[in-house]
Amino acid sequence: MNREYVHGYDLRENGRLQDQAGTLVELLHSDTLYPAGCTVLEAGCGIGAQTLTLARNSPNARITSIDISETSLAEARRRVQAAGLTNVLLRRADIFALPFDPASFDHVFVCFVLEHLARPVEALEALRTLLKPGGTITVIEGDHGSAYFHPDSEAAHIAIQCQVELQRAAGGNAMIGRELYHLLARAGFASVHVSPRTVYVDSSRPELVDGFTRKTFTAMIEGVRESAIGAGLVEPAVFDRGIRDLYRTAGADGVFCYTFFKALGERP
Amino acid sequence: MNREYVHGYDLRENGRLQDQAGTLVELLHSDTLYPAGCTVLEAGCGIGAQTLTLARNSPNARITSIDISETSLAEARRRVQAAGLTNVLLRRADIFALPFDPASFDHVFVCFVLEHLARPVEALEALRTLLKPGGTITVIEGDHGSAYFHPDSEAAHIAIQCQVELQRAAGGNAMIGRELYHLLARAGFASVHVSPRTVYVDSSRPELVDGFTRKTFTAMIEGVRESAIGAGLVEPAVFDRGIRDLYRTAGADGVFCYTFFKALGERP
Repeated sequence: MNREYVHGYDLRENGRLQDQAGTLVELLHSDTLYPAGCTVLEAGCGIGAQTLTLARNSPNARITSIDISETSLAEARRRVQAAGLTNVLLRRADIFALPFDPASFDHVFVCFVLEHLARPVEALEALRTLLKPGGTITVIEGDHGSAYFHPDSEAAHIAIQCQVELQRAAGGNAMIGRELYHLLARAGFASVHVSPRTVYVDSSRPELVDGFTRKTFTAMIEGVRESAIGAGLVEPAVFDRGIRDLYRTAGADGVFCYTFFKALGERP
Repeated sequence: MNREYVHGYDLRENGRLQDQAGTLVELLHSDTLYPAGCTVLEAGCGIGAQTLTLARNSPNARITSIDISETSLAEARRRVQAAGLTNVLLRRADIFALPFDPASFDHVFVCFVLEHLARPVEALEALRTLLKPGGTITVIEGDHGSAYFHPDSEAAHIAIQCQVELQRAAGGNAMIGRELYHLLARAGFASVHVSPRTVYVDSSRPELVDGFTRKTFTAMIEGVRESAIGAGLVEPAVFDRGIRDLYRTAGADGVFCYTFFKALGERP
């Protein structure tokens, strides 16, 4: 191996160090590790998609995961049991009427929840009062306005915009990721720090091509077809072309980019 | 200091580790360090904006920086001398008619150049032949389609689009960042690896608010006002509102995001 190869190798390794994580779970969760013995409230756990990772990464933290839907909780309970996790307590609760004493948690974790709420600041304020002073909140949200791709396609942007409009009509905000800084600040958190987590997918990353571009993002947009057409937001032919163009970005020369935002704040 | 504070501190530090670099130079350059004795070609150095960082970060590499413009080179020469750098050779040359022997460089570095070329793959092919087998090319480009912000503004997107259209009319591509993977692959490079470098700016990062949002990105878009209006791309009132809205993203509750792409490839 000559010296040039060695140089090349070093440069490449340096590049990887600064690089984003290889999987979505790593990208979003790898720096959330709660110490043994502390209490964590996961607000809005849904069917437990994040709960499993949270509980595995912090095996000795005591996690309470709440959701407003009993149906979702039943599925979350099934998953937690199937995974053999013993550090999670699942409980039905409304984020706007939380059945906990003030200052009763060391940490709060909220993932893909605020995007669905009409009053995210009020929810954050309610969660703040549950934290002990000095306790942290971690919030993760996506932002559909951060999606861009190659080949570019106006129809694909229109299809994505349908999802944004439908979520807005339901009181939510699919572009909330970029707003986390001021939302947490307005809710009274201190030392707010936001970091972008960009998922970059090209054909050298086949797991992300399939797992993210195709089966996560494009499948999600494809899922609103009937609602979008029914609401008169788009012509069927345009929507279908948009979906075809999104799948096209999973091709050999295609690229798909999307950014999640992870915010950390502290109860003063 | 109680245990909660310590936990909060640890979590925060973990967050920072995964976080993006604090300055643009760090974000783009920190993982480009060429070993002592190797030869590096910087293709398209302009007035030497990247040359100074390149030469400082690799003080014992021998850097040859070329540009097609004698005027730009004169300024680059002045800067290199003022910085006291002795490892840079500046030379006038055309990227499509390079005055070097094949396989004469260990590494090639190209930053903010391909976006201006009508035939980027041909340029990359020409550069590839100058590399020794196993030598690397590093390419950094922006992507104006990656810009989004809070508060969102249609006028601001229109103003940015003016710059994209003007650059396209001049034969370039202001959205080339997302295309680096397939461009390098098409030009015959192996082991191509692209990583996104997202600049995220909120008011907790005042140096970036001023240095990037205001003085780099918005000032650049503002600079095409006369050309854009002259070319009939936009109404003056819309453009001016767009610029005002871009400056508005530098406010206390504002956020500005932009992604650069850094690609590494190897001559097989």
